[in-house]
Amino acid sequence: MAKVITPRQEDYSRWYTDVIIQSQMADYSPVKGCMVIRPLGYALWEAIQRELDARFKETGHENAYFPLFIPESFLHKEAEHVAGFAPELAVVTHGGGKELEEALIVRPTSETIIYAMFAKWIRSYRDLPVLINQWANVVRWEMRTRLFLRTTEFLWQEGHTAHVSEAEAEEEALTILEIYRRFAEEHMAIPVYTGVKTESERFAGALRTYSIEALMQDKKALQAGTSHNLGQNFAKAFEVKYQTKDGTWEHVWSTSWGVSTRLVGALVMAHGDDNGVSFPPRLAPLQVVIVPIWKTDEEKSRIAEAARLAAEELKGACRVKVDLRDEVSPGWKFNEWELKGVPLRLEIGPRDLEKNQFTAVRRLDRRKTAVPRDGLLAHVGPLLEEIQADMLEKGRAFLRENTRDAKSYDELKRGLEETGGFFRAHWCGSADCEKRIKDETKATIRCIPLEGNREDGTCLRCNGASRRWVYFARSY
Amino acid sequence: MAKVITPRQEDYSRWYTDVIIQSQMADYSPVKGCMVIRPLGYALWEAIQRELDARFKETGHENAYFPLFIPESFLHKEAEHVAGFAPELAVVTHGGGKELEEALIVRPTSETIIYAMFAKWIRSYRDLPVLINQWANVVRWEMRTRLFLRTTEFLWQEGHTAHVSEAEAEEEALTILEIYRRFAEEHMAIPVYTGVKTESERFAGALRTYSIEALMQDKKALQAGTSHNLGQNFAKAFEVKYQTKDGTWEHVWSTSWGVSTRLVGALVMAHGDDNGVSFPPRLAPLQVVIVPIWKTDEEKSRIAEAARLAAEELKGACRVKVDLRDEVSPGWKFNEWELKGVPLRLEIGPRDLEKNQFTAVRRLDRRKTAVPRDGLLAHVGPLLEEIQADMLEKGRAFLRENTRDAKSYDELKRGLEETGGFFRAHWCGSADCEKRIKDETKATIRCIPLEGNREDGTCLRCNGASRRWVYFARSY
Repeated sequence: MAKVITPRQEDYSRWYTDVIIQSQMADYSPVKGCMVIRPLGYALWEAIQRELDARFKETGHENAYFPLFIPESFLHKEAEHVAGFAPELAVVTHGGGKELEEALIVRPTSETIIYAMFAKWIRSYRDLPVLINQWANVVRWEMRTRLFLRTTEFLWQEGHTAHVSEAEAEEEALTILEIYRRFAEEHMAIPVYTGVKTESERFAGALRTYSIEALMQDKKALQAGTSHNLGQNFAKAFEVKYQTKDGTWEHVWSTSWGVSTRLVGALVMAHGDDNGVSFPPRLAPLQVVIVPIWKTDEEKSRIAEAARLAAEELKGACRVKVDLRDEVSPGWKFNEWELKGVPLRLEIGPRDLEKNQFTAVRRLDRRKTAVPRDGLLAHVGPLLEEIQADMLEKGRAFLRENTRDAKSYDELKRGLEETGGFFRAHWCGSADCEKRIKDETKATIRCIPLEGNREDGTCLRCNGASRRWVYFARSY
Repeated sequence: MAKVITPRQEDYSRWYTDVIIQSQMADYSPVKGCMVIRPLGYALWEAIQRELDARFKETGHENAYFPLFIPESFLHKEAEHVAGFAPELAVVTHGGGKELEEALIVRPTSETIIYAMFAKWIRSYRDLPVLINQWANVVRWEMRTRLFLRTTEFLWQEGHTAHVSEAEAEEEALTILEIYRRFAEEHMAIPVYTGVKTESERFAGALRTYSIEALMQDKKALQAGTSHNLGQNFAKAFEVKYQTKDGTWEHVWSTSWGVSTRLVGALVMAHGDDNGVSFPPRLAPLQVVIVPIWKTDEEKSRIAEAARLAAEELKGACRVKVDLRDEVSPGWKFNEWELKGVPLRLEIGPRDLEKNQFTAVRRLDRRKTAVPRDGLLAHVGPLLEEIQADMLEKGRAFLRENTRDAKSYDELKRGLEETGGFFRAHWCGSADCEKRIKDETKATIRCIPLEGNREDGTCLRCNGASRRWVYFARSY
């Protein structure tokens, strides 16, 4: 605890690492590129899993589990797919003391192994749709890694679905995009832009890739979830066919979609401050911490008792802990629980006891309110919901204030240097212009909105005709 | 569905595979030794996870996540450990297109990587105990695999804890053993024997290994969970030390423990019959299926409506589904839901409608009861609990009837051939006798009970003195 957190203004990247390590969310491991997710970080992932899993199941998806290893030849069946992943693969060459006849790839994603199974399972239109999700670890060899944001091994969910028509696959891809968008806003308190990726940014083997894009405090964008309409590409590569009602055979239409432990990094980067991490109540592993404050022994017994009773009262309704440690001071406790991101602190000292109240302090802004001891339960729920709403509102304001129009290439370049954030700008649609802008500014097209962006204009770089603006930003 | 299930009497092993494949719990994958867990099989694993995870958390454990890969040198730090696992390892030699300087092992278990982290995290007695659990996939190269029971990759939980004293570590190992025992009985409806393993059967690197041992329908034992007191072996290998209150430095005492997707196989083997799998209500993904029976269209609309209403009524209280399919007959539906192990079926036909009732049919024994439509909810809960209790009672009777005394080596040999099951028999304690008995009979000492087995006798094989009997059985 004696360690100092680098302030965000000084070095955002060091701040990020500092708060994760010091709050004990994660740690570096002795395995290059791989991290250890410690209990606080993992509890956040569990909260994310719990909520998303419920939404997937509500919409008819079922969980399954496919092998970690993929025969090397499978990856070669879809040409774009293997080209996209080849540089990032981890390869098992020996098993059980012998060299393998065919090397096995540690899955970087599971399309190929899953489509091999779909080909076996799907026979008739009656078997469709197949709506499957998998919670798993995947491995992509990364040269430059960052805790949670980019690690060689990471945890994720990957949905894989098969349908009778392109329209149905498209609807599925967009249903999931909406689940991701709402989850980001309603649970993570992180508002996002949604849209479709350009050809150069889409998933290797997809027809269309949709994404949710968030903005971090350093004004860089973070892709927080993707949903792909795969068309019939994988179905054709793996011969996944079904017999229609009319008796003809057709390839299925399919989707895949995923979010990963990167979301935990997004929570840190979006809400943390120079005192540590800060979590929205709906996902916070611990929502309320009760800290008693005493000087004399006589005070201690009465105040500790009041704190204990309060924890008892709140237990069924929220995730609460009472911190009765003797060996550290109340101030030390305040710092520790702020470092670890607990959204609401309830203090009770001699004056509070006298007034029959707790002093509630919000992690978000340290705003204090007195809360009567009688009916504590009735007050804490609304306080947590208020914090959740205020965090989202703060995020919305931040995103709004940091989304600007760039009417010219100069305006974009200047904006990227001076303010950062998202820029609405016109683009002609050519991959060449896109690449030149990226090379020259380090900004990419984060997504092309699905609506609300139709307007005539001219491309930033080539002045060619453009019918709609897109979101540019520098990103993680 | 046209496929025939091999009867248990004809070939228990084929029956096992048949019911798993046909009920769509799992499937073979194109990767040697690896299986695909399909939604029904995975839903059982999720139910197992949900219950055990709650019990681990209640007893103070936290989940975390450690890397999939372990540097080869780590495994060599504990001599017995590497000797135990060396023949089963999968080795990653290439990553990101290059040959690695040090090969990485795909974890067969995580002691070594976790102790490397414990060495970093643990400094003082104040940091102890550390009570960590991980839900993860592990890989052990297996030559002969069986769905769920023995696969190259499997899913499991592995608990890893560190303590200030041997007594505390021992208490932890036994606490977990008791959690496993109760879970097996109360949720899986599988009664088990518990005890300590002999030296030759214990975990590579452990001081003592405890296990729960169940009996399958073919009278072979199945080790269903293990809990290890690791002493200071790993602490010494990885230099995990803490400073005591007195300021001296000591190695921690530690435990590890785990159960795996093998438990799903145990559920199939313990409860299934020639019609398919059969699940205890507390774990069954679907607890109740409602099947309407009609002949005329007029009947259909009224009966389907009654079935739908019943499902609506039960929805909040149990996992229920109404099967309104038109294209298959009621008989076909009965077979399908029996195959898939749903514990309770509610039928409603014209006569039931007239009598204002449902006919409830138990998967366990097809016993039928009439259940009034009014107050259906109040009847279904107790019916499910009754099924759960009856399945456990049936399991208890089976275990009791198939546990025998073997007073002589001949009796053991004859018993193993004629009846199978567990045999209480005396053993002198020598590894030599143990090995000879195993070589000659294929039976192993499943466990040495912790109590209730003290009595003077003579070793089955050598007639040497014995102070307690142990459980022998052939096993999976």
